[in-house]
Amino acid sequence: MPELRHDPIQKRWVIIATERQKRQTWFDQELTLPSTPVCPFCPGNEAMTPPAILTHPENGPWSIRVVPNKYPALAIEGGTDRQGVGLYDRMNGIGAHEVVIETPLHVEHIADMDLAHVEKLFLVYRSRLHDLMQDDRFKYVMIFKNHGAEGGATIAHPHTQIIATPVTPKTVSTELESAREHFRLKERCIFCDMLHDELESGERVVYMSDHFVVLCPYASRFPYETIVLPREHMHDYALASDEVVRDLAHTVQVTLAKLRKAVNDPPFNFLFHTAPNAGHARRRAHYWDTLAYDWHWHMEILPRLTRTAGFEWGTDFYINPTPPEDAADILRRTSIDV
Amino acid sequence: MPELRHDPIQKRWVIIATERQKRQTWFDQELTLPSTPVCPFCPGNEAMTPPAILTHPENGPWSIRVVPNKYPALAIEGGTDRQGVGLYDRMNGIGAHEVVIETPLHVEHIADMDLAHVEKLFLVYRSRLHDLMQDDRFKYVMIFKNHGAEGGATIAHPHTQIIATPVTPKTVSTELESAREHFRLKERCIFCDMLHDELESGERVVYMSDHFVVLCPYASRFPYETIVLPREHMHDYALASDEVVRDLAHTVQVTLAKLRKAVNDPPFNFLFHTAPNAGHARRRAHYWDTLAYDWHWHMEILPRLTRTAGFEWGTDFYINPTPPEDAADILRRTSIDV
Repeated sequence: MPELRHDPIQKRWVIIATERQKRQTWFDQELTLPSTPVCPFCPGNEAMTPPAILTHPENGPWSIRVVPNKYPALAIEGGTDRQGVGLYDRMNGIGAHEVVIETPLHVEHIADMDLAHVEKLFLVYRSRLHDLMQDDRFKYVMIFKNHGAEGGATIAHPHTQIIATPVTPKTVSTELESAREHFRLKERCIFCDMLHDELESGERVVYMSDHFVVLCPYASRFPYETIVLPREHMHDYALASDEVVRDLAHTVQVTLAKLRKAVNDPPFNFLFHTAPNAGHARRRAHYWDTLAYDWHWHMEILPRLTRTAGFEWGTDFYINPTPPEDAADILRRTSIDV
Repeated sequence: MPELRHDPIQKRWVIIATERQKRQTWFDQELTLPSTPVCPFCPGNEAMTPPAILTHPENGPWSIRVVPNKYPALAIEGGTDRQGVGLYDRMNGIGAHEVVIETPLHVEHIADMDLAHVEKLFLVYRSRLHDLMQDDRFKYVMIFKNHGAEGGATIAHPHTQIIATPVTPKTVSTELESAREHFRLKERCIFCDMLHDELESGERVVYMSDHFVVLCPYASRFPYETIVLPREHMHDYALASDEVVRDLAHTVQVTLAKLRKAVNDPPFNFLFHTAPNAGHARRRAHYWDTLAYDWHWHMEILPRLTRTAGFEWGTDFYINPTPPEDAADILRRTSIDV
C-alpha cells in the first residue's frame, strides 16, 4: 500500500510509492526513451495493460483508450486511515492513477492529429474528471501529460496521465488561497483581473480563440511557458460545455504546433488546474468554502528547455533567460498549418 | 539588467535573466556535459573568468578560487527599485552570483579530496556567506552545488555556486514560518523536536558525527535524499565555529562517499538552508522578528535519480519509490574508506 506522508516544515505531502520500484526505468540514467521491444500501448498489445476503463469508440478498433496505470502511484481500494506519527502525519496512499492512450499510433504529436480526434481526447479528459469526482475520497484530480524523455515520459507512445489524490496539492492550495484572498478583498476573480490587464496590454498574448486566451505569464518560470485561460469565469473543467471543450482542444493544438515550430520540437508538460472536489464537503458546514467559485480553471503548458538544479530545489525561485514578452512575440508570429 | 518579477497567484518570485541567454547551453538538448575545448576553471585559464574574489592560498598556485559568475543571474550594482506594475510587482534583479572553483583538478569528487581540503572549502563557503551578509540589499544567500549533467551542471570542473537575492525565497520563507509557528506554540525548535524523535527511533539515521546528524527525511521527495542537521540548535551558518565547520566538511564527505558507493555515483545537488540576512532589518522595528533565532540551519543533499514531470510541476507533490527507512538502512550499512 503506498503511503502519503506530510512534511511539517515544508507543509507538503509526498507519496511513498514502493510499487513503482518495479518499473524498469527508475534508476536508469539513460535519457533516451527506453526502446521497449513491445509497446504496451500499441493496438494488439491490449493484454499488456490492465483492462480498459473506457475506449472510444466503444466497439471496433479503438482510437482512444483509458486504462489503470500498471504501476500506480496510489492504490484505488481502501480508506485513507489518517494518523499522527509523533511530529509527522501520514495516511494511506489512496487514489486513482489512470493512463489515457491518446492514439493507436506509436508516434504522433498532438499538433498533427485530426482536430476531431483532439476534441474527443479533451472530452475524454472531462469525462474521467467528472467520473473520478464522484468518489468522495478524492479531493483533487490532476490531468497531465509528459512529452519527451526530458519531459519525464518513460513510454514514447502518446499518453496523458490522470492522478486523483486524497488531499489538495500544495500548488493548487496556494492558487486557491490567492484567488480567495483577492476575491474577499475586491469581489473580483484574480484570474479575470489578470486577463483584463493582459488583453489591454497585449504584449504577452500568444493566441485568442472564441473561449480562450493563451498568455506567456508575467512571472514565467520557464522559457516559452504558456497559460491557457478561459475568457469567461469558470471554476471547474468537469462542468465545461462541449463547445468550450472543443474550443480548448483547438487552442491547445494551435499552441503546441506553434511551440513545436518556434522552439524545435521541445519536450514539454501540460497540466490542468481545476477546482478541487467539493463532493466530500457536500455534507459539511464549510460546503460553500470548498466550492472554489472564486477560482478560475486553466491549463499550463511548460516546455522543458532549462534544467532545474540546486538553486531551484532550495528556493522555489526560477531563473528564466527568456522574457515572456519575447516568447509571446515569437509564438504569436509563428505561422502554422493547423 | 535582470528583473525580479512576482507571481501574485503562486506568490513566487522569478528572475528574468536575459544575460544568461549568452550561455551556449540553454537550449542545448544534449544531456552530456558540453566538452568545452578549454575549461575556464582549470589552472592556466584564469583569464577566462572575471578576476577572483578570493583565492586559497592567497599566493602561489591556488587550490580553491572564488570568482563572479561570468553569466550572472543577478546584477551586483544598483538599487532594487521596487515597483507595482498593474496587478504585478517587480524589482531590479540585484544580487550576487559567485562560483567557488573547488579544486584545480578538472575531475575530482568531494569524496576523494583530502579532508583538509574539504574543510577549507566549507570554511570558504562560510567566509563568502559572512561577507555577502554585510550587504544590506541581500536578504538571502544560497550556497548550492550541482553535480553531474542531470544535476544541472553545465561545466564538469567541480564547482559550487553562491547566489545572493534581494528577497527571501519562498522555500526558505515556508520553513521559517513553520519553525516560528511551532516555536510560538511550544517554545521549542521544530528541527530540535524532529532530531529528538529521529534519534529515538533511529530508523532514518544515516550517520552521526560530533556536531551533526545525517537523516533520510520522513517525507523524502527523492530516493536517498538526506538532511544534515546540527545537533546543537543554531540558526546561522555564518556564525558556526571553525570546529563545527570542519566537522560538517567531514560529515558531508562521508555522506557523499556513501551515496556514491550505494547508488552508483548519482548526479546530485546539495544546498544550505541558513538564516536570512538580518542586516537590512537591524535599523527597523521588526529586528527581532527577522533574526530567525527560532530556526535551525541545515544542509540538504538531493540525488537526482527520478525525473520530475507534469505531476510534480502542477502539484508540488512528489512520488518517491524508495521509503526513507530503506534508503537510510542502505546508506548506514555502506562502508567507505573516507
